[in-house]
Amino acid sequence: MLKNAVKLSHFYLENFIKDGAFAVDATCGNGGDTLFLAELVGENGIVFGFDIQKEAIQNTRLRLENAKLSDRVQLFLDGHENMEHYLDSQLVDAVVFNLGYLPKGDHSLHTKPKTTISAIDTALKHLKKEGIVAVSIYHGGDSGFEERDAVLSFLKTLDKHIYNVIIHQYTNKPNNPPILAIICHND
Amino acid sequence: MLKNAVKLSHFYLENFIKDGAFAVDATCGNGGDTLFLAELVGENGIVFGFDIQKEAIQNTRLRLENAKLSDRVQLFLDGHENMEHYLDSQLVDAVVFNLGYLPKGDHSLHTKPKTTISAIDTALKHLKKEGIVAVSIYHGGDSGFEERDAVLSFLKTLDKHIYNVIIHQYTNKPNNPPILAIICHND
Repeated sequence: MLKNAVKLSHFYLENFIKDGAFAVDATCGNGGDTLFLAELVGENGIVFGFDIQKEAIQNTRLRLENAKLSDRVQLFLDGHENMEHYLDSQLVDAVVFNLGYLPKGDHSLHTKPKTTISAIDTALKHLKKEGIVAVSIYHGGDSGFEERDAVLSFLKTLDKHIYNVIIHQYTNKPNNPPILAIICHND
Repeated sequence: MLKNAVKLSHFYLENFIKDGAFAVDATCGNGGDTLFLAELVGENGIVFGFDIQKEAIQNTRLRLENAKLSDRVQLFLDGHENMEHYLDSQLVDAVVFNLGYLPKGDHSLHTKPKTTISAIDTALKHLKKEGIVAVSIYHGGDSGFEERDAVLSFLKTLDKHIYNVIIHQYTNKPNNPPILAIICHND
């Protein structure tokens, strides 16, 4: 149930996302989290999904169609750093990031510190009270450590009166297991 | 809701502990967690509570009596390193530790690395599949860092095929905020 960062993020999201919620998948990838969010928000909710790769958007669209959940999801072929334009003044209940490269995709295409941090910052500005941002951080191997270090440094600077930042590490596993960062709006 | 290690441990425990469960409070302190566990296990459940200080056991007993939940709790004036004798061959669903000293008590009396690790080891040996151990680790100030370092080192050695060890750190707070360790039996 809690065996890795993504499963752990689902544990939090299941507890925080209620029927009718507005959730964002900032990195659709192959659509696993987009589908999960679409199920959680229910038929009165809405999900926005972003990815910069056409293949990711196509895979996600197909997955949602197969699950007959497309009607509650809007997909955007654009980088999450442009989320602001699509959200406008709307507030969100949850935003999910999976950093790194597209699984089974081109490893040279991956999220980058500058745009990732800009997108997390936007997500936090649009977060409702008691809303949640979940960031699964892949590091080591092809992902390196630069993005991890930049994101963790950025999260340390968040105002403690407004946000609870919880960093999760699986310390009995080898080979740099992904880290989960959970940021809750505590205002 | 998730504003500190103890609240975060409650978030996990609420999700893991079902009606009729067998839970252990390894460090009763002033009884906050003992009471919380007694509520979670329901009228068909049972809670064992340990503390080495008479004052802690008295405070906990009073708190349970006021809540009319004493009948589902057994309190033992003994160190948690002796938990084995009381558990015998019974398996448990959840074990909670709050390391450090008794709040508002004598700061020179506090949990110690050797007995703490022995008790966590016993708890893990008695843990049911899908059971959970939650350890809130106070560090810095009067608590120092010795116990934190010893416990975190011990947890790193746990078999990854049997246990998921998740270390939680509040990285945007100053002054050594308590760390939460969650260990789930994943067999």
